[in-house]
Amino acid sequence: MKTPTAAILVVGNEVLTAKVQDENGPYAAKRLRALGVQLTALLTLPDQLDVLAEAVARERTRVDWLFTSGGVGPTHDDVTLLAIARALGRSLARHPVLADHIRGWHRRHGAEPPEAALRMADVPEGTRLAGDPAYPVMVVENVVMLPGVPQFFRAQFDAFTAVLDAPPFRLASVYLGIAEDLFVQALDRVARDHADVDIGSYPRFDDADHRVRVTFEAKDAARVEAALRAFLATLPDGALLRREGP
Amino acid sequence: MKTPTAAILVVGNEVLTAKVQDENGPYAAKRLRALGVQLTALLTLPDQLDVLAEAVARERTRVDWLFTSGGVGPTHDDVTLLAIARALGRSLARHPVLADHIRGWHRRHGAEPPEAALRMADVPEGTRLAGDPAYPVMVVENVVMLPGVPQFFRAQFDAFTAVLDAPPFRLASVYLGIAEDLFVQALDRVARDHADVDIGSYPRFDDADHRVRVTFEAKDAARVEAALRAFLATLPDGALLRREGP
Repeated sequence: MKTPTAAILVVGNEVLTAKVQDENGPYAAKRLRALGVQLTALLTLPDQLDVLAEAVARERTRVDWLFTSGGVGPTHDDVTLLAIARALGRSLARHPVLADHIRGWHRRHGAEPPEAALRMADVPEGTRLAGDPAYPVMVVENVVMLPGVPQFFRAQFDAFTAVLDAPPFRLASVYLGIAEDLFVQALDRVARDHADVDIGSYPRFDDADHRVRVTFEAKDAARVEAALRAFLATLPDGALLRREGP
Repeated sequence: MKTPTAAILVVGNEVLTAKVQDENGPYAAKRLRALGVQLTALLTLPDQLDVLAEAVARERTRVDWLFTSGGVGPTHDDVTLLAIARALGRSLARHPVLADHIRGWHRRHGAEPPEAALRMADVPEGTRLAGDPAYPVMVVENVVMLPGVPQFFRAQFDAFTAVLDAPPFRLASVYLGIAEDLFVQALDRVARDHADVDIGSYPRFDDADHRVRVTFEAKDAARVEAALRAFLATLPDGALLRREGP
């Protein structure tokens, strides 16, 4: 089975201007990993129509799912849905179910919605609703349009991704007491010989109990183990402090 | 004076695979803001040569400075410098000063550096060294190549950006007790009439003491104040809970 792929586009002037730190990207990264989905890009861009439309057009062709976060409210800086429509060559159209949701919410609070609120139901033509019908997730082609407010982002992200299901990634780590340049040539060879295993090398220069963590990751635990063993066989005595996984 | 612009490219398999949460992007975002520099993109991409080369070629033409984080070590997954060289149509060449640094460091630790360590001195042709000569920052054209290890990233980022100096951004915020859709039309008009002021609207749905924070930001405090006052004049009595700045 091909590993599903995803990208995340955070529409975040407030992140770029350092007013807040993004929570949605890290949350989605963690959840996608647990679901066995490969995250290939995490982009934070400003709420500019042309910038967003270009990024959506480019990134969505590279992945199975593009998740956007933010820019779906009623104010002038909420341009994400229009940008996605442009990227897909679609127009915006008022979605009757979403408009009913907004009307229902306002009536429960004792008023008809202003036109500005109903504009939140103007979505790329062909948008379908997924997840919980009481709080639907907007999806058009392979673009999933999520709100930026973290508690809503999480609820909708989880509702949508519950149906994604892929074999898990298998991760093994070795913690070493020697510097990178003492094993880099051996690791190079192992990486070449085991191209189906993702190998990462993460040196530490603080007071951690190890100097380098080397990670081996793939969907097939046997391949992870084979790459790891091939690497361990090259290490001098005493270099390995401990290992974890897969 | 034109506001200087910057983008950040985090080369971060470990971030995309949720092994660690990026610290360098948020750090740089905060520092750039304080320096009066506009951050226009924060991208996290995997350590794939073609993906990185394309992103560098695209993003660096849009900004005054492109900062990269990570992928500058000696291992097989350190491909950032090669990607930047490709993006700029340059080759890699061993930098004599950097090679001397590496030799000096190893000799102080009692050994000649292995060839693998010296490879860290293979940088895009024409790379110049900025900042502290004892711990130089690598810069080629408008690309600043920073290490991924957070304490080194910060030291080099601060050393390089110390020479950037632009007028500060002036930020004002109003905290409102009413929902967005009650003021969205008025805010739309203010945003149109004050196009030189960045206006953001950030609703809360938790137990915060306000329902929406509206921000006004520009380099000119008088323009910020003018936009803010124009907006305040449209609000119903009691809607404003408090204001901050500029």
